[in-house]
Amino acid sequence: MLLRIDHVGVACHNLEEKIEFYESVFGLTVVSREVNEEQGVREAMLHVADGDQGASYVQLLEPLHPDTAVGRFLAKRGEGVHHIGYGVADVTEALKEIGAKGVRLIDERPRHGSMGASIAFLHPKDVGGVLTELVETSRR
Amino acid sequence: MLLRIDHVGVACHNLEEKIEFYESVFGLTVVSREVNEEQGVREAMLHVADGDQGASYVQLLEPLHPDTAVGRFLAKRGEGVHHIGYGVADVTEALKEIGAKGVRLIDERPRHGSMGASIAFLHPKDVGGVLTELVETSRR
Repeated sequence: MLLRIDHVGVACHNLEEKIEFYESVFGLTVVSREVNEEQGVREAMLHVADGDQGASYVQLLEPLHPDTAVGRFLAKRGEGVHHIGYGVADVTEALKEIGAKGVRLIDERPRHGSMGASIAFLHPKDVGGVLTELVETSRR
Repeated sequence: MLLRIDHVGVACHNLEEKIEFYESVFGLTVVSREVNEEQGVREAMLHVADGDQGASYVQLLEPLHPDTAVGRFLAKRGEGVHHIGYGVADVTEALKEIGAKGVRLIDERPRHGSMGASIAFLHPKDVGGVLTELVETSRR
């Protein structure tokens, strides 16, 4: 069901500083910048690799306000890995299968993610403490 | 420099339970089990994807004792993402380049990682709270 590690989502206080860090130290390249008002984040996708099943990224996330999911994460735990996104062929189908196995879904239906993807989050309490995102990439 | 997301390292209390979860819910397959006494962990690598630059895995980690890095992590933060491993062509060369940019190295020289890899950790305080591992896969 999981086709690839789509991205590692990293929460940070200052997006521009962190982009500069990942570019200069690790040689990654920003391929997309977006503001997602619904999720309350300003974000950047940095390309790591291509694969048979799609590309992999580091996703850097800066909260738009303290009172957002990422803002509260930063206040509680500080900067670090916020979630892991895995590629799936069909996010609606994957939610159905995973939900049927008793895993609580944060999103019962897909919503908009980075770069036109359809995404949904699974409850970290049912995935061993890992906030897990399913990503169906846009067919562009 | 970073060739791929090699693995997501996930700390857990019960390795066998977590393997069963990732297999049954996400359809992943265990390709390696090891005990690493030096790192104080019992671990399993579950294959996610292949790519031009090598494969990607979920690495599940159970501490051998509470007084280990992963044991202390669990006591402090609970189960969840412990570190991110990125593939590099030459871990010794990568350490030199990254250290020269002012990032503190937990390992000045490579040590043994999963499946015969040479690995080294970077200090999370200098990588935005992300415990970051460099992985040079074994040429088998």
